[in-house]
Amino acid sequence: MDTRVKQAFDLAAWSATRLAQVESALSEWVVAHAPAGLGQAMRYAVLDGGKRLRPLLALAAAEAVHGNEAAAMRAACAAELIHAYSLVHDDMPCMDNDVLRRGKPTVHVKFGQAQALLAGDALQALAFEILTPDDASVPLGMQARLCGLLARAAGHEGMAGGQAIDLASVGLALSEPELRAMHCRKTGALLKGSVMMGAACGEPGSVARDALAAYGAAMGLAFQVVDDILDVTADSATLGKTAGKDAAQDKPTYVSLLGLPRSQAYARELLDEALAALDRSQLADTTSLAALARMVVIREN
Amino acid sequence: MDTRVKQAFDLAAWSATRLAQVESALSEWVVAHAPAGLGQAMRYAVLDGGKRLRPLLALAAAEAVHGNEAAAMRAACAAELIHAYSLVHDDMPCMDNDVLRRGKPTVHVKFGQAQALLAGDALQALAFEILTPDDASVPLGMQARLCGLLARAAGHEGMAGGQAIDLASVGLALSEPELRAMHCRKTGALLKGSVMMGAACGEPGSVARDALAAYGAAMGLAFQVVDDILDVTADSATLGKTAGKDAAQDKPTYVSLLGLPRSQAYARELLDEALAALDRSQLADTTSLAALARMVVIREN
Repeated sequence: MDTRVKQAFDLAAWSATRLAQVESALSEWVVAHAPAGLGQAMRYAVLDGGKRLRPLLALAAAEAVHGNEAAAMRAACAAELIHAYSLVHDDMPCMDNDVLRRGKPTVHVKFGQAQALLAGDALQALAFEILTPDDASVPLGMQARLCGLLARAAGHEGMAGGQAIDLASVGLALSEPELRAMHCRKTGALLKGSVMMGAACGEPGSVARDALAAYGAAMGLAFQVVDDILDVTADSATLGKTAGKDAAQDKPTYVSLLGLPRSQAYARELLDEALAALDRSQLADTTSLAALARMVVIREN
Repeated sequence: MDTRVKQAFDLAAWSATRLAQVESALSEWVVAHAPAGLGQAMRYAVLDGGKRLRPLLALAAAEAVHGNEAAAMRAACAAELIHAYSLVHDDMPCMDNDVLRRGKPTVHVKFGQAQALLAGDALQALAFEILTPDDASVPLGMQARLCGLLARAAGHEGMAGGQAIDLASVGLALSEPELRAMHCRKTGALLKGSVMMGAACGEPGSVARDALAAYGAAMGLAFQVVDDILDVTADSATLGKTAGKDAAQDKPTYVSLLGLPRSQAYARELLDEALAALDRSQLADTTSLAALARMVVIREN
C-alpha cells in the first residue's frame, strides 16, 4: 500500500475541516466596519484566497501538543494576517509593483496606494489584537508568548529583515549561506513561527519544542526552495502567479545558484530533515505535520 | 506664588531625567544590526528627534499607579515606536508626500520608499517585541495586557482607522462629531493608549483606571485641537514643521470648523476635563500627568 496516497487523502479531509474554520474565523475577525473603506480593503486582502499554509501549520502543531483550541485558532489567523499584510505591502509600486494576485487586482490597484499602506499596517496590528482577547478564552501567559513569537517572526530578525535582504540582493551573486539566510528570514521565519505558535498553545517539553523548531526551520526553507523550483518548472496557470519572475527580476534563487537537479535534491533532503525532527519529537501524533511537509515539497516539482 | 511656574519647572526636571532614559532605551532596542540597511533606516526614524510625549505619558501614568518600572519603560518605548512608524508611512509619497521632518530628510527620501515601507513595518513589529521580553522582568500577564492595549490603539479602531478617515475627508465639510471621531482615533487613541499602558504597569482600581482613561481621552483630543490652532497661529520655525499645511491641503480642522477663539476655548475646556479626571482618580500623586496635560495645551497658543 502506498502510504503517501493514504496520507495525502487524510490531509485533504483534515485540511478541509480546518480551512472552513479558519475562513469563518478570519471573516469574523477582519471586520468590515473599520472606517472609511479601510475595513473593505482589509477584508479584500485577507478573504477568499490563499492556501492558508500558516494557519494549517499552527493548527497541526497545536493538535500535536494537545494545545488550547481557542488559542490555536487565534494563532493560526494572526499568522495569516501577518502574511496577508506582507503581500499587500510587497505588491505596492515601490516594492514589486504587482497588479494581480490570485487572479484579482492587488489591493493598491483596487483601493489606491494610501489605503493599501494603511490596510497592511492595520492588519499587522489586528494580528496582535486577535492574540489578546479580552475574554478568558486564552490564558494571559499564553497570549504573551504568542505575541512574542509572532513579533519576532514578523520583524527585523524575521520576515521584514528578509525582505530588506531581498531588496538589497537584486542582481547580486549571493553565496548559498547568504541565500539561505535571506530565505530563512523572508518566508521561513513566519512558517517556523506558525509552527512554534501552535506549539505554544500547549505545554510541550523541551525535546518536543526543539524538534518542532527543527521541523519548522527545515520545512520553511524547503518551501522557498520549492518556490524557486516552481518558478522555473511550472507555468503561470498552475502557479497562480507569474512564472519565471525571479529570473526576469534578476533575483538570486536556489535554481540559479545550484541548478535544477541539485535544488530538487535539496528540497527532498529538507523534507527528510523535517520528518526526522518529527520522529524524535516524542509526540504521539504528528501525522498532520508530516503530511503538510510532504505537501509543501511534493507540490508540482 | 504662581503654581504654574513651579509645576512647569518641576516638569522640566522630571522630563529631563526620563527623556534621557527613554533615549537610551530606544537606542538599545532599535538595533543597528538589522540586515541590509534596515537597522539604519529604523534608527534614523526613531532616534534624535521628537518630543517623546507618548513615552512621558506612559511613564507618568505608571508612576501614578506605582507600576513596574521595567514594564513602564518598555510600554513607553513601544508606544513611541508605533508613533515613529506612523510618521514614516505618513510621509511617503502615496500619503502626505513630505520630504522634511524635524529639519531632516524623511526616511523615504534618505533610504528609498521600499526601505521606508519595510522600516515602518519592522518598527511596528518591534514595538510588540519590546513588550514581550524573554527574561522575567515583566510578568507575562502584564505583557499580554500591554500588547492588547497597544494593538487596539494602533489598529483599525485607533490610529490606522483615524488615518483612513483623514484620507477620506480631504475637501469635505465634516461636522464637529465627525471631526472629533477622526481625531480621537488618529492621534487620540495612541496618546490615550500610552496613558493606559502606563496604568497597566500597575494595578489601579477601577475608579483610578476609569479616571485615567478619561484623562487620556481629553488630553488626546486637546493635543489635536491645539495642533490645529498652532497650524494657524505659529510659524514654521516654532512649529518644527510646515505651518498652514492643513488649510493648504484643504483638510478639515477645529479652526476651520469652530474658528480660532472657540477652538482655543475648547482646548482649555478639554484641559479642565483632563485635570478634573485626575482629581477624581483617588491616586496620591498625579502631578506629572497634570503638568503634561498643561504642557500639551499651553504650548504656544
